Amino acid sequence: MTHTKPVNVGLLGIGTVGGGAYTVLARNAAEIARRAGRPILITRVADRNLELARAVTGNAATVTLTDDAFAVVRAPEIDVVVELIGGYGVARELVLEAIKNGKHVVTANKALLAVHGNEIFAAAQEKGVTVAFEAAVAGGIPIIKALREGLSANHIEWAAGIINGTTNFILSEMRDKGLPFAQVLKEAQRLGYAEADPTFDIEGIDAAHKVTLIAAIAFGIPIQFDKAYVEGITRLEAADIQYAGQLGYRIKLLGIARRRAHGVELRVHPTLVPEKRLLANVEGAMNAVLVKADAVGATLYYGKGAGAEPTASAVIADLVDVARASAIAPSLRVPHLAFQPDQLRSDLPILPIDEAETAFYLRLVVEDKLGVLADVTRILADEGLSIDALLQREPEEGEGKTDIIILTHVCQEKQANAAIARIEKLAAVTEKVTRLRLESLQ
Amino acid sequence: MTHTKPVNVGLLGIGTVGGGAYTVLARNAAEIARRAGRPILITRVADRNLELARAVTGNAATVTLTDDAFAVVRAPEIDVVVELIGGYGVARELVLEAIKNGKHVVTANKALLAVHGNEIFAAAQEKGVTVAFEAAVAGGIPIIKALREGLSANHIEWAAGIINGTTNFILSEMRDKGLPFAQVLKEAQRLGYAEADPTFDIEGIDAAHKVTLIAAIAFGIPIQFDKAYVEGITRLEAADIQYAGQLGYRIKLLGIARRRAHGVELRVHPTLVPEKRLLANVEGAMNAVLVKADAVGATLYYGKGAGAEPTASAVIADLVDVARASAIAPSLRVPHLAFQPDQLRSDLPILPIDEAETAFYLRLVVEDKLGVLADVTRILADEGLSIDALLQREPEEGEGKTDIIILTHVCQEKQANAAIARIEKLAAVTEKVTRLRLESLQ
Repeated sequence: MTHTKPVNVGLLGIGTVGGGAYTVLARNAAEIARRAGRPILITRVADRNLELARAVTGNAATVTLTDDAFAVVRAPEIDVVVELIGGYGVARELVLEAIKNGKHVVTANKALLAVHGNEIFAAAQEKGVTVAFEAAVAGGIPIIKALREGLSANHIEWAAGIINGTTNFILSEMRDKGLPFAQVLKEAQRLGYAEADPTFDIEGIDAAHKVTLIAAIAFGIPIQFDKAYVEGITRLEAADIQYAGQLGYRIKLLGIARRRAHGVELRVHPTLVPEKRLLANVEGAMNAVLVKADAVGATLYYGKGAGAEPTASAVIADLVDVARASAIAPSLRVPHLAFQPDQLRSDLPILPIDEAETAFYLRLVVEDKLGVLADVTRILADEGLSIDALLQREPEEGEGKTDIIILTHVCQEKQANAAIARIEKLAAVTEKVTRLRLESLQ
Repeated sequence: MTHTKPVNVGLLGIGTVGGGAYTVLARNAAEIARRAGRPILITRVADRNLELARAVTGNAATVTLTDDAFAVVRAPEIDVVVELIGGYGVARELVLEAIKNGKHVVTANKALLAVHGNEIFAAAQEKGVTVAFEAAVAGGIPIIKALREGLSANHIEWAAGIINGTTNFILSEMRDKGLPFAQVLKEAQRLGYAEADPTFDIEGIDAAHKVTLIAAIAFGIPIQFDKAYVEGITRLEAADIQYAGQLGYRIKLLGIARRRAHGVELRVHPTLVPEKRLLANVEGAMNAVLVKADAVGATLYYGKGAGAEPTASAVIADLVDVARASAIAPSLRVPHLAFQPDQLRSDLPILPIDEAETAFYLRLVVEDKLGVLADVTRILADEGLSIDALLQREPEEGEGKTDIIILTHVCQEKQANAAIARIEKLAAVTEKVTRLRLESLQ
């Protein structure tokens, strides 16, 4: 080994992910040290549940357990604090206190960084410490490293990711089994793929936290979670998954960050994706991020986006990086948000969803009468929407109603809104129009 | 910008990839500098074709052109040499001379590193310079970075990659169009996907160079190209692609590196892959590498494995990394082969192909007689091979011959060899047995 001085790590939270980090670091200690050039040791653990902490650490003599996380972030011998508590509250205080005490920080906390990241990175910058967050986006997939370092030659055009395993599991099940959302959600909760309160996942908030971080490092802009457009999967109907399938598409909850000439689209919503794309074939709780960049073209990164050990994999990779970075001048390190802190662009605002450019899937429930289709297509043409595909369900004998499914070419969201408003006023259109966005991802 | 001192780069070779590197670096100069914290400038270019060099650089006043590459690697103001000449001969001399002169090196030359990498990395280590080679494996996909840094917490179990675009294009076309190898090769040459002398690609040598490098950094072993088992796609028949499809598999040329208890499997050959795997759906000239590791599980990295700008993307990312690494002590840098140089394992030899463990696809041409299948299955059972699936073609009226296709479970290669030798001695088996390997990749 080149260095013998170990890196002393203080671990905040030894639940699922914290326990995974502890276990993987113990199991692979020798192999990790062979790579890092020095041992990485967890010497302090803080958790409110001391019994759990004792069980996970096996009461190892080399680890000091406490229920006072602030004692860990202030402990003189600690080099790096790993924050795995989650949430915006005490986690923020602990991270800021760790920074204040000159500790580097590794965190898996996407919510914290999406909401308070600018404050946290500024504090870290001022103090000359690193805040690493590979585990905050897509779990074990090294997507932050790919965007910040692997693609550093590129002008990144867009990124689109399946970055929430819970919703991807639910959508895969809905499609495979033809079941409605509510029933699959219950099953997902029973299997542990969805939490008791699944709001953050199913409403798209978790994915929005992550894509907000992706947008920042892809385009060199500040973190702006409050500007993201967020739409979850709770209103998605099994019928639309089926119609999409008939037209050659899968529906995925995507986090999309796209650079436009005068701003950035930042949005999370269910999205039709051509079934030929690899991204459309990412099933179950798996994650994947597709990145389009000018020199390299499209690259895709796939793996487990959650779970104890996949997340631990990212946390520990950050520890190895931080161990290296801690010995060098801050100006030589990879910048937190990929671009040098004085080089973030303020002239690329997040665009309102009205100005997003995307294709649309529209499902209309209409009376089965002559001329309805002519009225609808006339409105679309008036509003500048051109039609890419059209599907009309054969009504049952005597049913009197049918579904018309229309795929449009790319247009501005506000054009689609205008067309939909007019269509909904047609007498033969009996229900609100179902509208989903469609991305060709080319 | 934090640093104003630019990184001065000497470019050896301004053909396809060199031209791409020059162009991308010029086009994205501002964005790259915003990331790197300092400008990265190509100040010298060496190429035998000075006219080409003048055309690509537009005769820029900031660039000195020469046809003497040795003058570039010795030029005092050059910080990093980018070697894009290719081959084992003068490229080796130039890289060693650059190292001797204290220059860092970035190269896309997999052949050079697979054959002379141990010597080159030892020289670099002694001189305290970095030799970066992201572009040498899978073009623009940041797979070296993922393996060396992104997965540093993991005990890597295996990696399997589509790492040669030419052969993947040919195999995709053979499957799509049902055409024989020779005809598709000609088409690939016409389209520029295959070179005039395609030997390195179609015989699997290029893929073997790359998987040799992958094995080294995945397992912490020296580079041992001469121990790799290499089988290309030239003898692959369209019929086998079709039968594989009927059984739910695609045939891909994979580079496989697998850690076993007492050694490493290192092999390149056409491989049946379950069509449900993302890797099986990587089509055309695209590349992808699937990595299985103990903590993170399976991760996959997909993108363009060749071409001017995708390769340039990797070369320039290396330049940004090297610019950072050049300012810090060698012991703090990411080691060339992922593990500290004194930590490479000598107790993990490359295993002979006889000891490889894999499943098999066997195609037998047999006389359509009672009892043949009984004889064949008896031999398989005797040799310890168990059958996973079996397919028998219905012979045409009066044909008298038929095909039997057998998929085995995983066994040792030498077991399969013994069984095949015995099967070929059966009177009813009229041709040599066609044997392909099958990997479930789970």
